[in-house]
Amino acid sequence: MTVLILTCEQDVTADMVVAQLHRRGAPLVRFDPGDLPGEGALSAEYVRGEFRGYLSTGGRVVSMDGLRSIWVRRPGEPAAHAPEPSPWLSAETGQALYGMLDCTAARWMNERGAAARARLKPWQLRTAHHSGFPVPATVVTTYPRVAQQFADQYRHVVVKAVSGRPPGDPPMALPTTLVPSDADFSEVAAGPTLLQRYIAKSADIRLTAVGEELFAARKTAEPGQVDGRFGDTGHTWKPVEPPARVRRAVARYMELARLAYGAFDFAEDAEGTWWFLECNQGGQFGFIELETEQPIADAVAGWLAAPGETG
Amino acid sequence: MTVLILTCEQDVTADMVVAQLHRRGAPLVRFDPGDLPGEGALSAEYVRGEFRGYLSTGGRVVSMDGLRSIWVRRPGEPAAHAPEPSPWLSAETGQALYGMLDCTAARWMNERGAAARARLKPWQLRTAHHSGFPVPATVVTTYPRVAQQFADQYRHVVVKAVSGRPPGDPPMALPTTLVPSDADFSEVAAGPTLLQRYIAKSADIRLTAVGEELFAARKTAEPGQVDGRFGDTGHTWKPVEPPARVRRAVARYMELARLAYGAFDFAEDAEGTWWFLECNQGGQFGFIELETEQPIADAVAGWLAAPGETG
Repeated sequence: MTVLILTCEQDVTADMVVAQLHRRGAPLVRFDPGDLPGEGALSAEYVRGEFRGYLSTGGRVVSMDGLRSIWVRRPGEPAAHAPEPSPWLSAETGQALYGMLDCTAARWMNERGAAARARLKPWQLRTAHHSGFPVPATVVTTYPRVAQQFADQYRHVVVKAVSGRPPGDPPMALPTTLVPSDADFSEVAAGPTLLQRYIAKSADIRLTAVGEELFAARKTAEPGQVDGRFGDTGHTWKPVEPPARVRRAVARYMELARLAYGAFDFAEDAEGTWWFLECNQGGQFGFIELETEQPIADAVAGWLAAPGETG
Repeated sequence: MTVLILTCEQDVTADMVVAQLHRRGAPLVRFDPGDLPGEGALSAEYVRGEFRGYLSTGGRVVSMDGLRSIWVRRPGEPAAHAPEPSPWLSAETGQALYGMLDCTAARWMNERGAAARARLKPWQLRTAHHSGFPVPATVVTTYPRVAQQFADQYRHVVVKAVSGRPPGDPPMALPTTLVPSDADFSEVAAGPTLLQRYIAKSADIRLTAVGEELFAARKTAEPGQVDGRFGDTGHTWKPVEPPARVRRAVARYMELARLAYGAFDFAEDAEGTWWFLECNQGGQFGFIELETEQPIADAVAGWLAAPGETG
């Protein structure tokens, strides 16, 4: 049984997992949907109820009934490398590929429908609350008046992108930013704006959930620091044991969201409470593993290579 | 409790349902995501576990906890009518809107994740077989050799678009076409191609499923006719009673696909067997209702306005 990794060529995180799969002797195929058709080829037959499909790349052929699991890591746009790429060819190719993969019994990390919903930040906040996490007060609005009232009420608020990061290649960085007390909110009418109560934090927490395995890491924050992803503070990520309450909430969140993998960001306040900021279903883990030596890539490999039903 | 209809301005099918909702006295709001922000505005607060959201358009405000159901009819691209539209603004606006709507208890016709999967034609064929429909032998391939073998084996085969219809406005028509016996399949390598055994049909069948209500219509086919959607044959759609076996298969398909609405296309052969061709989760029904007088718009309105859990 084979593990299928959907990703583009340059992907250090995938390399780490591939190394662990090799160590375990687990067969794998790495495939970039951008190489289809061309480097890659596929065929699927639906005859008298029988479904037989296969995918070929670099001279290797993988049968659809031999697929154990599918890791949607960072797949390229289907047909992106075709001689004459077009939105229509990408649509046709994507339908053929994902339509075929959806016919298999393979387990997904993560299932595509669940992943799409889990990207919606408003949905994350609601689900986090239902899972038992403390969540900072948040508003998403196109009303300047509502934004102003929210800022007046909570005094210290931050503004974030609703949809994660701006599209484009290379992606533009858009750090979470503290809103100045004299901010003019009239521009809120031009695009939905997400404001969140600022949590004065003593540390950033990154918790990576792989099936039922959790890896939490903590990085001390400088006083007044807002977005832990940017700027060098001299502090490093160190492993930390998640409280039992957090463990339960993570398990509940993963179940509600139907995710096999999730990267949670928390702000730890002076009382030691972990405030839910977001859960990125496709979040990186390489930088955490490098600093903490937590075996996250191996856990991903283990989940992908496991024989039965998991996560 | 309010029905929310997500659609763009010119939509005769939505007009038919709106008329039926008015007749029933069911409150509704018609909203085009393209009008957000601008004509439309939204606000959602997530405070101490409470979620309060509202959407406003044309001076009307609808509260998220007052939403009964959401009909995803033909929504415009979020922020399409903004003064400075951009992919980034569309992404932000779409996340804010659908993230808020996904936090409500409203019933969806159809739920967005289910709709995305139900559009995959290979997945449709497999699911149709599992539901108990006869499905014509089909291949989706990028191998010219496989396409040639399939054509040789079945003699009469048709070629179709994998992904429905080409994108673009106005959309290009791409009728299902009979493959000539001397066809050259070398171009198959340039894009995934769907070939299907041709069913010599005596009629086209369109079955519209609205929750548990089914409306089937039959249109006599001319000998050798391939795609019933194009060309005027002088025949019209007439109501027909679906066989019990088809009823059961439709119910099973709708359940497996988690759909509240689906438009099924069948080819009826000389023996009277209905062969599954496809199920369009967003298929039109206006043209059927006009010719058959089947009350489909009223059934949609009834589903949307129903108080409890349905379909």
